[in-house]
Amino acid sequence: MNVHKIAVLAGDGIGKEVMPEGIRAVDAAAKRFNIGIEWTSFEWPSCDYYLKHGKMMPDDWKEQLDGYDALFFGAVGWPDTVPDHVSLWGSLLKFRRQFDQYINLRPVRLLPGVPCPLANKQPGDIDMMIVRENTEGEYSSVGGRMFEGTDREFVLQEAIFTRTGVDRVLKFAFELAQKRPKKHLTSATKSNGISISMPYWDERVDAMSAGYPEIRHDKYHIDILAARFVLSPERFDVVVASNLFGDILSDLGPACAGTIGIAPSANLNPERSFPSLFEPVHGSAPDIYGQNIANPIAMIWCGAMMLDFLGYTEAHDAMVAAVERCLVDGPRTPDLGGTASTTEVGMAIASII
Amino acid sequence: MNVHKIAVLAGDGIGKEVMPEGIRAVDAAAKRFNIGIEWTSFEWPSCDYYLKHGKMMPDDWKEQLDGYDALFFGAVGWPDTVPDHVSLWGSLLKFRRQFDQYINLRPVRLLPGVPCPLANKQPGDIDMMIVRENTEGEYSSVGGRMFEGTDREFVLQEAIFTRTGVDRVLKFAFELAQKRPKKHLTSATKSNGISISMPYWDERVDAMSAGYPEIRHDKYHIDILAARFVLSPERFDVVVASNLFGDILSDLGPACAGTIGIAPSANLNPERSFPSLFEPVHGSAPDIYGQNIANPIAMIWCGAMMLDFLGYTEAHDAMVAAVERCLVDGPRTPDLGGTASTTEVGMAIASII
Ligand SMILES: CC(C)[C@H](C(=O)O)[C@@H](O)C(=O)O
Ligand SMILES: CC(C)[C@H](C(=O)O)[C@@H](O)C(=O)O
Repeated sequence: MNVHKIAVLAGDGIGKEVMPEGIRAVDAAAKRFNIGIEWTSFEWPSCDYYLKHGKMMPDDWKEQLDGYDALFFGAVGWPDTVPDHVSLWGSLLKFRRQFDQYINLRPVRLLPGVPCPLANKQPGDIDMMIVRENTEGEYSSVGGRMFEGTDREFVLQEAIFTRTGVDRVLKFAFELAQKRPKKHLTSATKSNGISISMPYWDERVDAMSAGYPEIRHDKYHIDILAARFVLSPERFDVVVASNLFGDILSDLGPACAGTIGIAPSANLNPERSFPSLFEPVHGSAPDIYGQNIANPIAMIWCGAMMLDFLGYTEAHDAMVAAVERCLVDGPRTPDLGGTASTTEVGMAIASII
Repeated sequence: MNVHKIAVLAGDGIGKEVMPEGIRAVDAAAKRFNIGIEWTSFEWPSCDYYLKHGKMMPDDWKEQLDGYDALFFGAVGWPDTVPDHVSLWGSLLKFRRQFDQYINLRPVRLLPGVPCPLANKQPGDIDMMIVRENTEGEYSSVGGRMFEGTDREFVLQEAIFTRTGVDRVLKFAFELAQKRPKKHLTSATKSNGISISMPYWDERVDAMSAGYPEIRHDKYHIDILAARFVLSPERFDVVVASNLFGDILSDLGPACAGTIGIAPSANLNPERSFPSLFEPVHGSAPDIYGQNIANPIAMIWCGAMMLDFLGYTEAHDAMVAAVERCLVDGPRTPDLGGTASTTEVGMAIASII
């Protein structure tokens, strides 16, 4: 049996509470489908580590993690002690760039048993995949400040779009659309207002689409696209977006599907030159940490995506089916109106698997 | 009687259909409240003008418009003949910058009679003012392309935030919050991911807030803020945002309130050194143009905002009350489930006023 080495990075806050349930569920699937998994836990990145060492991770983090098949990541951040941009640029955003995890993939589905904030939507009405560029674009640390401290002060912040960076995320999105029944791809843009980067993005979409004649594709400006997510989410299938637009859409989408607390995401290096990273969309949630009430479903769903990426599609499907059954039959954590603990929900899902 | 000179810029598509109803309603309010209004129509900016002259407006547009008290603007854009970035950078975005209309103000309210896409919301639950920076930030034409046509190609797009630009929009927003009962201000940021401009924005919010101790203020990252608009819009009062974030929120907000087709916006130069501009949030809607079915309410509501800005608060309130009554009692255009024409709705509202 091929054994997959997984690095466990639980992080901060509820990351530490949901992680054991993610592991439990993956172990259950591994047992059922005969998959070899070897877990190794790290105390970093975390804000606790930062308080002790003045940095989120040791200097040789890259060497230490590079041999793993995947990184199973809880959540990082504890704004009371470490500012968010320090904790995140010191961990998650470093992984995305340095491990070239250039795809951020987020499934958004309206599931049975989940209360939907939109009126008159049925399970199945929302079923999309958001493909976000994850290494460049609007998230850059290039730029600076001039005339500091005076009335003439200003800052420049550079957004950077490379052909390599844009084309590879578009290619991934078109190929994903090709595997889905609707074969429909929507690109988020803002070329009517942001006049250099976004027309370039559109141009690359047009160039790429020539190679995929069977895919129906359209473009929406981000403002109206956000509105459409609320008004007619059923019209979207695969949605591809820049780093910032993808960030916004992949919180907005799960909000529309009522699943922001249970949404998973995968940060992928499709070439497998570096480990990919699987993390819940939710953060470390300092407000509910310590009560064992965090919903472990996002973490478990991340485990399913991880197994899928490692090649075990059946195991993925079984895990997602178990999540769906638990959403309908319970037990439920308080965020979904129940009274169960994190552990109870995790154990229930593991036993269904 | 003081006579206000208003420039009428109907523009393209349904802009031309809703404009007469906007004028009709303002005239009705002017008559009732004894306000002097003098209308002057311009055939530009428009895509028709572009096709004849190769530009959206004559070269001396600024001199021609500078004497007016306000610009009453329909919609611009006809993508089949003129690309959006050409028609918009050649008109609306020029006005905003060159007339220094640095505030884009958009009321978002859930009104009786308007079907809301969110479940379980009552009229009154959503009542916010979105204050958007309107001249700088992410909308810049600074930047460029390198290694064009090769695999190494990339583009740079500069976002530019000046202290002047940021502080004046924040000041406007804090003062607006002070006039509202909830005295609550939310700032949209993304300082955890966009690491130069957005931390600067946050810093200026902190500095400005010191002068307004009675205002409760908070910050949300744009991704979670977009999600919150869907999940708990009732928690927002005044929302202040950069050019791009404000653009997104001011389409998303009206979508959540079911009013994207009837939402107004004001592009203000608060110092009145230049004319301010009042325009519906909706565009020129080529798909429904020519049928006289466009909803004129956004244009009429813009007329109300214009009178408010000119100092006639009572006239504003009467116009908004008339809109609200028409939304409840009808007549309604097809977008709100009715069968009335643009003209019928406009006449009904004018007669209520
Ligand atoms: C048409 C476009 C350039 C414009 C903008 O993004 O500002 C519009 O969306 C708006 O909100 O007025
Ligand atoms: C925490 C933050 C930097 C991050 C992002 O914006 O990428 C998060 O919102 C996400 O979507 O993973």
